[in-house]
Order: sequence, then structure tokens, then C-alpha cells
Amino acid sequence: MTPAFTGPALITLTETTMTLPSTKTPTDWKRFIRPEIRAMKGYVPGEQPQGGPVLKLNTNENPYPPSPKVLEAIREAASGDRIRKYPDPMGNAFRSAAAGALGVKPEMILCGNGSDDILTILARTFVPEGGIISSPYPSYLLYQTLADIQGGKFQPFPYEGNGWELPRQWNAPVPHLTLVANPNSPSGTYIPAADIAQFVEMLKGPVVVDEAYADFAPGNAISLTLDARPAVAPVVISRTLSKSYALAGIRFGFAIADEAIIDEMTKVKDSYNCDAVSLAAATAAMKDQEYLQSITKKIIATREQSFQTLQKLGFQVISSHANFLWCEHPAHDATKLYQGLREKNILVRLMNYPGWKRGLRISIGTDAEMDQLFDRLGQLL
Amino acid sequence: MTPAFTGPALITLTETTMTLPSTKTPTDWKRFIRPEIRAMKGYVPGEQPQGGPVLKLNTNENPYPPSPKVLEAIREAASGDRIRKYPDPMGNAFRSAAAGALGVKPEMILCGNGSDDILTILARTFVPEGGIISSPYPSYLLYQTLADIQGGKFQPFPYEGNGWELPRQWNAPVPHLTLVANPNSPSGTYIPAADIAQFVEMLKGPVVVDEAYADFAPGNAISLTLDARPAVAPVVISRTLSKSYALAGIRFGFAIADEAIIDEMTKVKDSYNCDAVSLAAATAAMKDQEYLQSITKKIIATREQSFQTLQKLGFQVISSHANFLWCEHPAHDATKLYQGLREKNILVRLMNYPGWKRGLRISIGTDAEMDQLFDRLGQLL
Repeated sequence: MTPAFTGPALITLTETTMTLPSTKTPTDWKRFIRPEIRAMKGYVPGEQPQGGPVLKLNTNENPYPPSPKVLEAIREAASGDRIRKYPDPMGNAFRSAAAGALGVKPEMILCGNGSDDILTILARTFVPEGGIISSPYPSYLLYQTLADIQGGKFQPFPYEGNGWELPRQWNAPVPHLTLVANPNSPSGTYIPAADIAQFVEMLKGPVVVDEAYADFAPGNAISLTLDARPAVAPVVISRTLSKSYALAGIRFGFAIADEAIIDEMTKVKDSYNCDAVSLAAATAAMKDQEYLQSITKKIIATREQSFQTLQKLGFQVISSHANFLWCEHPAHDATKLYQGLREKNILVRLMNYPGWKRGLRISIGTDAEMDQLFDRLGQLL
Repeated sequence: MTPAFTGPALITLTETTMTLPSTKTPTDWKRFIRPEIRAMKGYVPGEQPQGGPVLKLNTNENPYPPSPKVLEAIREAASGDRIRKYPDPMGNAFRSAAAGALGVKPEMILCGNGSDDILTILARTFVPEGGIISSPYPSYLLYQTLADIQGGKFQPFPYEGNGWELPRQWNAPVPHLTLVANPNSPSGTYIPAADIAQFVEMLKGPVVVDEAYADFAPGNAISLTLDARPAVAPVVISRTLSKSYALAGIRFGFAIADEAIIDEMTKVKDSYNCDAVSLAAATAAMKDQEYLQSITKKIIATREQSFQTLQKLGFQVISSHANFLWCEHPAHDATKLYQGLREKNILVRLMNYPGWKRGLRISIGTDAEMDQLFDRLGQLL
């Protein structure tokens, strides 16, 4: 009962076949892979040892558990009917909760499977093959990977001055997308929204403010999607629940932007990019702002204490507005310190940005965890 | 303490700024969006009413709950330490379980945030801007969306003969990626692995066999990634846990392919594309093959019974190897039947493929749910 085909856009198949050079072995299969992907090394995330007595201070996880309300929401979501059905494609319950907490409209929010998903969607929405992704340097290494996968160019530019500031002049081509991590990783430095607005006005291209660590900072750039939005180009805010909300395991992030931008990003995302359990967990987390404040305060206090301790140990430390500290020791090689910590099952992130001295990025744990770190560092110095 | 920058690949910023035509209003922001995305309509998933007394027979969800072991695994995963930490980036526990169940090596498996994530990763791995995604027609509408987002061309080709068979001759350019849903949606028809192998040998390009419904079919094409793999081009199998495992809510799919292909796809995926809870649920599901068999048998029995009932009601029905039936009624307009069902809160999928008659794709529910559907159809005919 196949009806006669009358659609217009089909390939017509005839009696002749195309001749292609034959391939003999599967090793030749790589020729089918896009050359940009073949040439890539791929982003290497921080080590995630599964189990074992490891003190993880390497991927900026939260040392405190998530809100008890989040764990309750996950257990509640474990019902047959919730799990067997597709989730809400747009995650409207989360959008309402986040809009309420952050003072924006629900339509200005897009849910993502981690902020990596949001950044991927942004790259695919704004950057054509051969397009330019730009970012201050040094920053989140993933930005280059996003450019690589899009078949685009990655053009980093240096932070200016001693204060990790954005450039005040721009004579390069306007990038298709510029990503500013704020607070920045690995430095932990923070740029006020007014300076970012000035940068956008000068750049005249779309800017993503990656606010993975904003809850540990004195402010954020949400106003640049509202009343203070630049006229020349859109600002998109990217957020994650992995750090301040202690939810790295559930993979949840979101974007805040003008509705028109969210509509375009929605076309690019996978239809059901967030699952029913994560949506329930993220919604519960967003509604419990009191818990967020309580653990964030503790982490900031430990950060300030740790900054002083590291200085006393002779480290050069950058004042941080995130949940980590970047440090170097003038007399001790960072690689050796990293290895010395690792021997005692303490993981920190060893970072080696070309053009920079190697340094350690240390996530803020509990006070007791930091004491364990400092004890070991004391032995190594 | 910012060190002097010496990295090689940075933009040099000078005193002059670039002049671009200024934009006055945010409505002009769309010019920053890739033209391919602007021009897209976006994939429209089936309706997902949140709550309410609706009989959902429109998105091929499983009418039975997932294995009790899955729900237990989700509740167990709701511990502070599991949730606050990043998950295993590769999902190795799931890979081992799936490899054991399916007779492949764990390294041949890639975990995905639903099979949509797998299909997106495949498009980004194989298809350049301007590249060709091809598929038999009519089939899963998402394939065209994947081509649109990549800035590629979608070139469908008709099924051959009365049996929904693959072409035996090919004189068009070799597509960068050809997607064959098997069993196919919306028809539910099934093509044996040997015929797919023959098609790949003729096509000489990479083929994805989208086996979302394979657990309801008499066989699958996994052998084409093992001993029976074609020499000319790779075959990638895509699977989802949304249908046969009753896990649409947790978003989990996976790919099976040669290790070399999985390695390239790994570069493209988001680092942590699957969350800790979904991984725990999917692993538990894969280990409970007995439960899978038990609910699959029931659905197949209901499908065969429903096929006969629809025929008795005067429908033209295609014999199905999936968990749905595609039908048309020679005397009744599909849109009117769809609306008549909807009035009584029964949702089926109305599909309108250009070049084909409109038809209904009806997901297989429980026997009681199908009786409810047939009662209402009896009133409408």
C-alpha cells in the first residue's frame, strides 16, 4: 500500500551507479570524518576518579551537598509515570523558578544539559564554518574546542593591564561570538557589568558572559539583557548549577537573553535536552535560594582564609571572586607540587597556558579539606 | 602579577578601532544569527501535555513503567556526594553493561543524552557546511533538522517497491551521512541487516541505522559493526532507552560503532553529556534484560491485536515491527479523526508528509488503552 511518490525534493535514482575509489580496510574510514574533527585533539576535562579516597580540589565542585529539597525532588521524580514519559521540552517549571529568582521573564531563559550544552548551542547558533570565536586569554579552554568543532577560528586576545581588564580598543574583525568568563577561570578575576557593556559597544558583536561562578562574585551582568542592554549587539548570560548549587552530577545550565535570541537558540537545541529528573532537581534548587546563600557564604569565607594561607606559604595568589584560587610559587615548580599533592590523593588542576607560567588552580573545599591541602603543601615547600 | 604575554596566536589590538554600520535597535540583532538558523523553522516534537487526564498515544512512549530496579537506582543516586560531583564523562559502567547485553566491546559504545544527542554528534562529526544528509522518505523528521542546523542539504530518497525497501541503484553524490531508521517511523517497516549491508556497499558512504525501535523487531544490524561490517564505509547503530526501556524521561541513548569512529565522536560530544542519575538508571535498565523482554512481549502482542482491530474498522494499516501503527482510512480524513480523538483527550500523531496522504501514527498502549481508542474511533467512523 505504498502510495506513488510525488514529493518534489527527492534524489532521482536511475539504473547507473556512481563509481568511487574503493576502500579496502576500515582504517580508511577516517576519510569520512570532517577534517576539522580529525585534526582536533578534543577537550580534556579535569580528572574524575570514580570512587576512592580522593580529595577533589580540581574541577570546582562544591564541597557541600545540594539542598535537601533537591535530593527529595530527585527521589520524588523516581516514579514510573514521570520516567517513562518525555519531559517538558522547554522546562517551563524551571524557567518560572529561575525567572522569579533572577528578575527576568521566563521567556528569556533557555534550559541546557549543563552550561556546556548552552555554549554548544550558542556556537551553533552564531558561528558559521570559518567563523571566529574570540575570548580573553587565558580562560576556559573549552572555548577553543567549540571553535574547532564548528570548523571556525579561535582568536584569543590578552587581558589588559594588571587588573585582568577587557580591551578598550579593537581593530580586529568582529568575532561571530565572543566569550567572556566572568569571574574568569583560571584567574578568578571579575569585571563589572558596566565595563562589559562598554566592551560590547566597542566590539559591536554578540558577547556571551559565562557566569559559571557568578554566585561567588559581587555582581553579575544580567542587567545587560534587560534595561542596560547594549544597542549594537546582544549579550547572552550563561549559568550553571554545577558550582554554587552543588549539582555537577545532574548537568544543568541555562542561558538568559533577549527572547528573540532564545527563540533562535531553541531551534538549535535537542528537543528534549533536559531530563525529567534534572529538571525537577534544578527547579527545587532554584527555589531554595536560602540554601544557596548559606553554602556560598561559607565557601567565600574559606576562600578568603585560604588566600591568606597560600600567601603565607609564599605563593603568588590572585584575589578571587570564584570558588577557586589560582597560584604560583616563585621557588617551586607547579608540576612538582601537583605531583606531590597527587601522591597523597589530593587533586588540584595543573594548568599550562602557552605564554604563561604553569600554575595551580585550587578549588575551595571545606575548611577541614583546605587544612589537609595546606598540611601537605607545607611538607612540599 | 599578570605576566607579560608571550603566546603566539593572539589578535594584536592597536589604537584604531574598526567601523561597522551601527545598529539602532535590538530587532536588528538577528543579523548576527547564522542565516541557516534564521531560515529554519525548527523541529516540532509531538505534544507533551504536562499533567491532566490525557491518553498519550502520540510519541511512542512505553505504556508500562520502567523496571523497578531503575527506579531504585534513581533513588539511590539521590545522595549528596553523587549529585555534587561531576559524573563519569564516558559512562563506563553503562558501556560495560550494554556491551555485555549486546555482545560488543565497551569501547564500541558511546553514551548520549538521548539518541537525539547521538544523532547530533554524528551530524557534527561527519557533515560539513554544505554537506549532504540523506535518508529514505518518509522517515524521522529530525533528520532534515540536523541537516539544516549543520548548514547542509537534506536529500531524501524514496523507499522502493511495495515493501519499503532500500534502493538497489545509486547515481546521486555519496552523502556525508545517510540515516536509515530501522524499524522506520512512521511506517514501522523493517529491513534485514543483510539488505542494509548491500545498501552500504552500493552507497559507499557512512550509514547510521537508527534502531530506536529495534527491540520490537525480529532483528537488528549490530553485526554490521562487527564481523559483517562493510569494507567500504562505516555503519553506526543508534539506540535509545526511551521506547522499549520506558525511559523517555531520563534521556538516554547510545551509539555502537567501530572504536575509531567512537573516538572521533567523543571529541564532538559535550564532556559530561550524561548525568549521574541517568547513567545510574540506564545501567540498571540495561542489566535487567528480563524485564525488557517481559514488557516488550506484551507490547508486541497488543500491536498484533490492534493491527487486526484497525483493519476491521476499515483502516489501511501497515504491518509494524515497532511500538506503533501507521494507518489511513479511505473514507475518513485523518485530520478529522485526529481532532475527534483529541476532543476526548486521546492524543495520536497526525502526520502530513508532502507527497503522501495524511495518516495517523498510533503508539501501542496497554490493551485497556487501545480499547479506549477503538471505542472512540468506532464513534467517529
